[in-house]
Amino acid sequence: MSKSENFFIYGRNPVEETLQNRPDEVDKIFVKNNIKPSTYQNINELAQENDVPLVKVPGAKIYNLVGKVNDQGFVAQLSAAKYTNFFDWVETLVLSENPAVLLLHGIEDPHNFGAILRSAAAAGIEAVIIPMQNQAPVNATVFKTSAGTAGRIPIIRVHDLNQAFKDLKAIGFTIVGLDGEAKETLWETDLDQPIVFLIGSEGEGIHAENLKRCDKVLNIPMTNNVESLNASVSAALISYEWMRQKKQ
Amino acid sequence: MSKSENFFIYGRNPVEETLQNRPDEVDKIFVKNNIKPSTYQNINELAQENDVPLVKVPGAKIYNLVGKVNDQGFVAQLSAAKYTNFFDWVETLVLSENPAVLLLHGIEDPHNFGAILRSAAAAGIEAVIIPMQNQAPVNATVFKTSAGTAGRIPIIRVHDLNQAFKDLKAIGFTIVGLDGEAKETLWETDLDQPIVFLIGSEGEGIHAENLKRCDKVLNIPMTNNVESLNASVSAALISYEWMRQKKQ
Repeated sequence: MSKSENFFIYGRNPVEETLQNRPDEVDKIFVKNNIKPSTYQNINELAQENDVPLVKVPGAKIYNLVGKVNDQGFVAQLSAAKYTNFFDWVETLVLSENPAVLLLHGIEDPHNFGAILRSAAAAGIEAVIIPMQNQAPVNATVFKTSAGTAGRIPIIRVHDLNQAFKDLKAIGFTIVGLDGEAKETLWETDLDQPIVFLIGSEGEGIHAENLKRCDKVLNIPMTNNVESLNASVSAALISYEWMRQKKQ
Repeated sequence: MSKSENFFIYGRNPVEETLQNRPDEVDKIFVKNNIKPSTYQNINELAQENDVPLVKVPGAKIYNLVGKVNDQGFVAQLSAAKYTNFFDWVETLVLSENPAVLLLHGIEDPHNFGAILRSAAAAGIEAVIIPMQNQAPVNATVFKTSAGTAGRIPIIRVHDLNQAFKDLKAIGFTIVGLDGEAKETLWETDLDQPIVFLIGSEGEGIHAENLKRCDKVLNIPMTNNVESLNASVSAALISYEWMRQKKQ
């Protein structure tokens, strides 16, 4: 992503206020490395609470980001993507229409993430939920790999995946995981209900602790001793099976 | 691919014989650049007939490939992949089992090609047919992206795509293309028959002239104004829809 596509807020108070009021929009905090940590304790705590990385950099780096302004040694880089707030999104939901959601966990490859967004948008998935940690953010590579579709589907970032599971269940969603060991296939299960598909990481699949949180675990059959599918292929297959069932 | 994973045949007669007897296994011919073309006209013609690239290189390059041997200025680089011969494969076919084949056209990105092989192997596709031109060969990147599954499914290279269409139709296959403009969806069509899925290039989809050769053209429905899917996603969706129908 070129610098011009990033947005910056500078100055000590503006950075602190942004972290306080809309932390979800902040991707990173830059602090000039000659500023004493004891003088910006609140900014530090807010960054930690909200999983926002804070890095100490030379003054030249700050200048590079925002030019000759009165930055006071503090810059907040805002997300290129406009993430949707979970609770705002919940208010727009029409549960009777049996919406489907992808909940990603550990998709660190931006190409895979972009490909997932593209298929999800194409299949009519209602939203893609991602955790703050161990997950590629929506950057330029993701936008490009999504073939420009990343902006056509709400992307929600959550701090606590466990809480997201609870909230989604409380709303009425069934949580479905994919696992090669599962007995039931994606085709044998009624997917036409408010449903969340949990998509695990490329390497490890879904963590055992997350599998336990699923209401149902399904497998995508594989022949020729193939052990797993690419995460973006799994996401596309389950999204389109949901679409097929919905249309029929 | 490291050099050790390539195989070389050197010497004028061995290279000529290899081109004559098993041209499908040759990826490239290297000829030392001080050898007069008039002295290896037959090798040149065989290379052209068989779509094998022939390049002229300095002696140092030849040395680099095969070391200190009596190469006479001629080296043939053999394919890392063992391609399957079309007619040998036809003899193994059990048409009553309604096999499915992917016929790729213009998949130049090795990552996409590898991803397609992985999903095709997982879905139980019988073979993947690729043209010699405008198509990534099976190289190390393809192997890696296929997660090692590239060797579990026959890969057939054909010189003339048009002839391949004719041969496959004569055998009893129905040729199915995918196109966003088609009226019928992949779900409404009986795929459980001897069937060939034509997968077009990422950028352009299926060429108009190839679409005309299809017995049937289907679409994968897309919402949110998404115009196309990644070629490897399209290939996975049609392969798995074939598998779903077959199992039910």
